[in-house]
Amino acid sequence: MTTTREMLDASPIDVPFDVAEVAAAIDACLDCSQACVADADADLVEPDVAEMRTCIALCLNCADLCDTTARFLSRPAQWDHFAVNHLLRACVRVCTTCAEECARHADHHAHCAACEKTCRACIRACSALLDAEALEELQKLGGA
Amino acid sequence: MTTTREMLDASPIDVPFDVAEVAAAIDACLDCSQACVADADADLVEPDVAEMRTCIALCLNCADLCDTTARFLSRPAQWDHFAVNHLLRACVRVCTTCAEECARHADHHAHCAACEKTCRACIRACSALLDAEALEELQKLGGA
Amino acid sequence: MTTTREMLDASPIDVPFDVAEVAAAIDACLDCSQACVADADADLVEPDVAEMRTCIALCLNCADLCDTTARFLSRPAQWDHFAVNHLLRACVRVCTTCAEECARHADHHAHCAACEKTCRACIRACSALLDAEALEELQKLGGA
Amino acid sequence: MTTTREMLDASPIDVPFDVAEVAAAIDACLDCSQACVADADADLVEPDVAEMRTCIALCLNCADLCDTTARFLSRPAQWDHFAVNHLLRACVRVCTTCAEECARHADHHAHCAACEKTCRACIRACSALLDAEALEELQKLGGA
Repeated sequence: MTTTREMLDASPIDVPFDVAEVAAAIDACLDCSQACVADADADLVEPDVAEMRTCIALCLNCADLCDTTARFLSRPAQWDHFAVNHLLRACVRVCTTCAEECARHADHHAHCAACEKTCRACIRACSALLDAEALEELQKLGGA
Repeated sequence: MTTTREMLDASPIDVPFDVAEVAAAIDACLDCSQACVADADADLVEPDVAEMRTCIALCLNCADLCDTTARFLSRPAQWDHFAVNHLLRACVRVCTTCAEECARHADHHAHCAACEKTCRACIRACSALLDAEALEELQKLGGA
Repeated sequence: MTTTREMLDASPIDVPFDVAEVAAAIDACLDCSQACVADADADLVEPDVAEMRTCIALCLNCADLCDTTARFLSRPAQWDHFAVNHLLRACVRVCTTCAEECARHADHHAHCAACEKTCRACIRACSALLDAEALEELQKLGGA
Repeated sequence: MTTTREMLDASPIDVPFDVAEVAAAIDACLDCSQACVADADADLVEPDVAEMRTCIALCLNCADLCDTTARFLSRPAQWDHFAVNHLLRACVRVCTTCAEECARHADHHAHCAACEKTCRACIRACSALLDAEALEELQKLGGA
C-alpha cells in the first residue's frame, strides 16, 4: 500500500478527476518506471543483449516519462489540463511501444514479461484518466 | 559550451530534425530546468513568499518536464515522433505559463527575470522543432 | 502491490543484499518521493505558506534524492557499493530532516503528517540496507 | 552560456562555496548527464553493443546522479552540507568509473570519447567543491 491516495486526499486542492483514479495512475506510473529501469538493467546482462537493444532504449524513455507524469499528477495546485493531457497521451504511447517490445521477449526473459505487465497496467490507468476527460468534454458539448 | 552537439553528431543515428536545432533545444531545456529549480528555491526565501506560490508551483512542473524533454531529444535510437511531439507541445505550454508568471515578479525579483528569460529561450527552441515538423508534414501533403 | 520484487528476482544478477530488503527500500523511496512532491504542492496552497517554506524546500530535495536512490537500487548490473552507500546515507539524512520538519506541522496539516510517516518508513528501509552492509563488513573483519 | 551563475547570484541566499565554482559544477553535472544519456543511446545502436553493456549501465547511473547533484547545488535555501558532501563524493565516483569505461572505447566510438571528456570535466568541477570544503574544515581546525 502506498501513501499516494492519502496525500491526494489531504491536499487543500482537489485533483480535477476522480481521486482514486488519479492515485491509481500515479502508482501505476511509478511502478512502471521502476520496472523499466530494472528491465533495461537486466537486459544489459543477458547473453542476447544484441536482441534487446530496442527494448532497452524503449524502457529508458518509458521510465523517464512515467516519472514526470507521476509528478504532474501529484500536483493539483497548478494543474494544467493541456500539459497533463499531452503527458498522458505520450505516456500511453511509450508504455504501449515498450509493452509490445517486451512481449516479444516475454517467453525467454521473465523480467520482460513482468515489465510488459506493468506497462499494460500503466496504460490502463492513464487511459482511464484520458477517457474521463473525454467524457467530461462530451458532456459539456451535450449540455451546451 | 556544452558537449550536446558533439554527442548528437557522434551518434550512429541521426536525429530526425536539424541537428543544430535539436542540440539547441536540449541545451535550452536543461538551462530552463536549472533556472526553474533555482527560481523556486529563491522564491521560497523571499519575504513575499505568499505572492510567489503560483510561481513556485509552475517552476516545479517546468523543471521536471524540461528535464524529460531533454532526455527524449538526446536519444535518437528509438525516436518516437508522436511522443516527442506531445512532449514538445506540453513543454512549450508549461514554459509559457511559467514565463508569464515570472514576468509578473521580474521587476522586484532578479531571479524571476532571469527565469522568465530562460523559459522564453526554451519556448523558442522547442517551437523551432515543432515548426520544422509541421513544415515537413505540409511538404508531404503538397507532394502527395 | 508493486512489481519491484518480481523485477529484482527476474534479473540475471542478484542484488548484493537481501532481495526483500532492497525491494522494500526501492518501494519506500518511490513512495517517499511521491509524498514529498505532493506535500510541497499542498504546502503551497495553505494559508500559512510562509510557515511552510522550510518544509517545501526540504521536500523538494528529498523527492529528487529518493528517486535517484530508487534507480540505483533497481540496477544490480553495475552495482557500485561506494556510490550506493553514499546515496543511502544522504537519503537517510534528507528523509530525517524532512520528517522532522513535517512533524512540526503534522497536527494542522494532514499532508505533512502523511509525508512524515512516509519519510520515516523510507529511513527505516534505507537504514536496514546500511546496517546489513555494516554487519557484513564487521563479519569480514572478524573472519580475517 | 547558461543562466546558472545569474540564477545563483540573484538568490537572496548565498551558496556556501565560491559561487563561480558552484555554477561551474552545476553546468558540468548537467552537461555530463546529457552526454551520458546520449552515449548510452548511441552505444545501443553500435554493432559491438555486447562490448558496450558495461558502458551503458554506468552511463545510466551517472546521468541520474549528475541530475540530482545539479538540483541540490541549485538550491541554497536549505543547503545540507552532509547530503551535498555525500552526493558530490558519489558523483565523483560514478563519473570516474564511467570515464574509465568510456576511455576503453574512445578510439573507436567518438561518442564515448566525448562522454569521457565530459565526465572528467564533471569530476574536476565536483572535486573543486569537495577540496574547498576540506580546506575550510582544515582552517577551522587550525584556528581552534
